[in-house]
Amino acid sequence: MKPHWPSVAIVGVGLIGGSVGQALLARRLAGRVIGIGRDPQSLAEATSRGAVSETTTDLAAVAGADFVLVATAVGAIGGLLERIDTAVRPGTPITDAGSTKARIVAGWERHRRRRRARFVGGHPLAGSHRRGPAAADGELFAGRVAVVTPAPATPAADVEAVGGFWSALGSTVYVMPPRQHDRLLAAASHAPHALAAALAAATPAAARRFTAGGWRDTTRVAAGDPGLWADILLDNAAEVARALDRVGRITARLRAALERGDRRAVETLLVRAKEARDAVGS
Amino acid sequence: MKPHWPSVAIVGVGLIGGSVGQALLARRLAGRVIGIGRDPQSLAEATSRGAVSETTTDLAAVAGADFVLVATAVGAIGGLLERIDTAVRPGTPITDAGSTKARIVAGWERHRRRRRARFVGGHPLAGSHRRGPAAADGELFAGRVAVVTPAPATPAADVEAVGGFWSALGSTVYVMPPRQHDRLLAAASHAPHALAAALAAATPAAARRFTAGGWRDTTRVAAGDPGLWADILLDNAAEVARALDRVGRITARLRAALERGDRRAVETLLVRAKEARDAVGS
Repeated sequence: MKPHWPSVAIVGVGLIGGSVGQALLARRLAGRVIGIGRDPQSLAEATSRGAVSETTTDLAAVAGADFVLVATAVGAIGGLLERIDTAVRPGTPITDAGSTKARIVAGWERHRRRRRARFVGGHPLAGSHRRGPAAADGELFAGRVAVVTPAPATPAADVEAVGGFWSALGSTVYVMPPRQHDRLLAAASHAPHALAAALAAATPAAARRFTAGGWRDTTRVAAGDPGLWADILLDNAAEVARALDRVGRITARLRAALERGDRRAVETLLVRAKEARDAVGS
Repeated sequence: MKPHWPSVAIVGVGLIGGSVGQALLARRLAGRVIGIGRDPQSLAEATSRGAVSETTTDLAAVAGADFVLVATAVGAIGGLLERIDTAVRPGTPITDAGSTKARIVAGWERHRRRRRARFVGGHPLAGSHRRGPAAADGELFAGRVAVVTPAPATPAADVEAVGGFWSALGSTVYVMPPRQHDRLLAAASHAPHALAAALAAATPAAARRFTAGGWRDTTRVAAGDPGLWADILLDNAAEVARALDRVGRITARLRAALERGDRRAVETLLVRAKEARDAVGS
């Protein structure tokens, strides 16, 4: 049976929040979608994109929701969860869409006993270098992966409530501890971002006009929002450092093989890289 | 006045050679385009794509050409230039499309006195991760950059002959010494390739299903041909190592800022990276 939420509140109606709202309304999964944000212009844009059915700048509006999604920048999520918990009806499921999970989940769990809501962290792996509700796309989560990250004390029913939400939007749901999520995402997303940024910053201005598709692809994510990414990288610093070290060791081996003119070692490493890249697909 | 070559020989009819042939014929810049290669199937494909007007597996056919382009893998160019020089009519301009220039140009210059042909190295910055004549595109060079790399002894008229060739195909031509080309391309293309490969090879298999657009962009070039890229990286090893070290120093600074939780340093670096990336465009 198709799930249905009479009323979903989305706190933060940017690309992710707006896309979730569009998906919920387009798929008739929710009766009402309450868009909550600070910027009236973004809220108006979300309305005009069919991403929300009503909007407010008042966080207290979560009291009317059966399900709450926090889709703001990572740095704001912890504080918002505290405020939302005091405003929702007891027992309301809440999740977030932050790119890091360990710190956010630990912050919630520290006071689990006095919580009124049922929070389980989550992360839909469906970004874009585009931002804001104008880029909202109700199909953004279809065929993608969403990770749900319960703490040891999280009841199974709460995991299912949040997993079912992303599943209804078309995503394949993986459940894992927050630390494992952060370790995997450091390798799959955060360290690549850090490397792309280092590469862009290290390229001499004189070389820029001689870049072609290779440099452009390799550095593309470095155009992302520096504030948002500083939050993410700092929030997952230890795992990002570990992933960077892994890349650094392989770069050092490639560099040494180049310096000694060891064609076989260079080609072996490039073959291994190609196999890894081809395994993921375009 | 539009330039015209009665007969151009293209040695190696892959993506670059095939695209040049298509551009020459489509723009009526050449009367005949002789495709020379080892693989009859590639030659047939080039013919069916309108990339050549005739084909042969016999390198001696360069004797009928007014202009010769060598568009093979970097590792094969030096040897082919030697053979072509003995076969062409005296004074025939030759260029190549190799991604590295210093070694190839030095190999030619070592015996400049006994040369029959007039060789000037070149490099059209117009790749693709697609390969072969089936991917040929006559507009591949339009609006792109081509670098022409004379040696100190190269006559100005020879530089103009080769520069005029790429210019006629729609590229903006930059003239610089081979070493400068290799230094700039190490930063703009070769080191990014090496890093993308190291990143792909360093990503644990378990993290692959949690990759999204960021990892895919950042590692895309790692799917390139390992043999071709081993040639390029080895041929430009010293400059690639230097460019990798520049990226490594910035990565180390970012890593250190993450470890000490220095938000300001992290964000400053990400802002600098974004500025560099935005300066190049999508």
